[in-house]
Amino acid sequence: MDVIYAIDIAGTFAFAISGALVAIRKKFDVFGVIIIAFVTAVGGGMTRDVLINAHPINWIGDINYIWTILIAVAVTFLFRSKIAPLRRTMFLFDTIGISVFTLLGVQKGINFNLHPFVALVMGMSSAVMGGVIRDVLTNEIPLIFHREIYASACLSGGIVYLLLYPLNMNEDVLFVISAGIIILVRTIAVQYKLELPRIKKDVFGK
Amino acid sequence: MDVIYAIDIAGTFAFAISGALVAIRKKFDVFGVIIIAFVTAVGGGMTRDVLINAHPINWIGDINYIWTILIAVAVTFLFRSKIAPLRRTMFLFDTIGISVFTLLGVQKGINFNLHPFVALVMGMSSAVMGGVIRDVLTNEIPLIFHREIYASACLSGGIVYLLLYPLNMNEDVLFVISAGIIILVRTIAVQYKLELPRIKKDVFGK
Amino acid sequence: MDVIYAIDIAGTFAFAISGALVAIRKKFDVFGVIIIAFVTAVGGGMTRDVLINAHPINWIGDINYIWTILIAVAVTFLFRSKIAPLRRTMFLFDTIGISVFTLLGVQKGINFNLHPFVALVMGMSSAVMGGVIRDVLTNEIPLIFHREIYASACLSGGIVYLLLYPLNMNEDVLFVISAGIIILVRTIAVQYKLELPRIKKDVFGK
Repeated sequence: MDVIYAIDIAGTFAFAISGALVAIRKKFDVFGVIIIAFVTAVGGGMTRDVLINAHPINWIGDINYIWTILIAVAVTFLFRSKIAPLRRTMFLFDTIGISVFTLLGVQKGINFNLHPFVALVMGMSSAVMGGVIRDVLTNEIPLIFHREIYASACLSGGIVYLLLYPLNMNEDVLFVISAGIIILVRTIAVQYKLELPRIKKDVFGK
Repeated sequence: MDVIYAIDIAGTFAFAISGALVAIRKKFDVFGVIIIAFVTAVGGGMTRDVLINAHPINWIGDINYIWTILIAVAVTFLFRSKIAPLRRTMFLFDTIGISVFTLLGVQKGINFNLHPFVALVMGMSSAVMGGVIRDVLTNEIPLIFHREIYASACLSGGIVYLLLYPLNMNEDVLFVISAGIIILVRTIAVQYKLELPRIKKDVFGK
Repeated sequence: MDVIYAIDIAGTFAFAISGALVAIRKKFDVFGVIIIAFVTAVGGGMTRDVLINAHPINWIGDINYIWTILIAVAVTFLFRSKIAPLRRTMFLFDTIGISVFTLLGVQKGINFNLHPFVALVMGMSSAVMGGVIRDVLTNEIPLIFHREIYASACLSGGIVYLLLYPLNMNEDVLFVISAGIIILVRTIAVQYKLELPRIKKDVFGK
């Protein structure tokens, strides 16, 4: 579970950087950049927790999220010019992030005894709502609505998790397998279509 | 009560189709269309339930909403060209839908012992917030802010319900009378002004 | 505490007028104007209460908010041409409003035993989320992201409150000192930069 927590924080970090970069590009001031980084990073889990009544919600129950986001914003400001060449690393972080966010959402849904379909929606929300709120606040049509791959990857991993869940296998193994599916689907989809100009948007503008 | 539930589902169906049509027009992909159909159909009740702390919220407590929406999206994709001539039927569905949504919201507010004004706001929210969220996500100024008729119809029906409520009449009769007011006000308003080019928007772009 | 309640209502009144003026400028109909005035005035506290699970949320637990907003909208319609020259008064109301909103948010956060950082975020949310929701609904990029002064003033007052809190001084005194900081920082910031054309936006378009 500690490994999953570490990846959750790494995903939060990656999402916060992606949000900060969007806000900087939009010429927001420091405060605006922090807000956008914040909602991008925790907006998904926050939406999920409010909808299923899981209080305290993610970033209220664990102060580490706020620290992670503040550090991510500082790093973005300091090393902005150096993050661009790290596109591959960012893509990796980001992909691992959405896989963990999706599965944590599905898991939480199951633990709350929700219908598998609802648990699946919770997994999707956790992964995509941060980006949706970010896009709404920056007055863009949410990218997710135009970029099927992102959502499809989350969906397939979530479905695999739900299908294997009744087999009662070790929960960590189940988590890793499903996360692998998400990472695999997304990476293959991106590779295969060679959508390089889109990859850029996917990584930094997600 | 079963009749009201059936109309609730029919309204959900109509709202989901109206959302799906907007998303298709905006060239969203399949995932985006499902999301927009979803928020249009259940966004109003969801907002109401989160605000009054009624958990599980509408679509989490009853899986039929998700099924209804998925079927509505499938129907929209399959019979898109045939739905246009059904404008009148859609308008009917939609009008019945908002009347039921409004009154279910008011009823729920009363059952939660809220002030009549707050119950009225809950009725309005149930009817209009789905469309508002849809418009925010598709980067439009919510149509409801420019189209008084829609809101006024809901408001008048809600007020009638609240005024007659203390008379202790049969709840179903009260429901039907108030719903009739909403349907009547909206239909007359649309007929009288002969706003045909607007009707189109009202039905499909609501 | 009665004084603070009175200022809370005055702040609600000022925020509702600022929202109504934006909606009127956007040519919304009566219903739209009321909605925008409503979310501008109570959106901040509503967001805070939903996130920390404080039910009934602000305007549901106290009907005076709705009355205040309705009166503010009526006043705006009746005296629209006369409110412009009152810019200074409005600025004062508005500044007092955000200072009270910020500190009520921080206080509530502390009373809910939240981490000081989270309490600070709750204070900020209470003060700025109303304007953010208003801007999202009117399809603008939230002004707050471009206007550091507003947020910085709230932040500094909130931090002072949290720093002095452990000293166990009289709560009302603490409140007044922190509110003074917010009012001072904002007023000085506006004065010093002589951003008059922006002041206009700050007051009415906040």
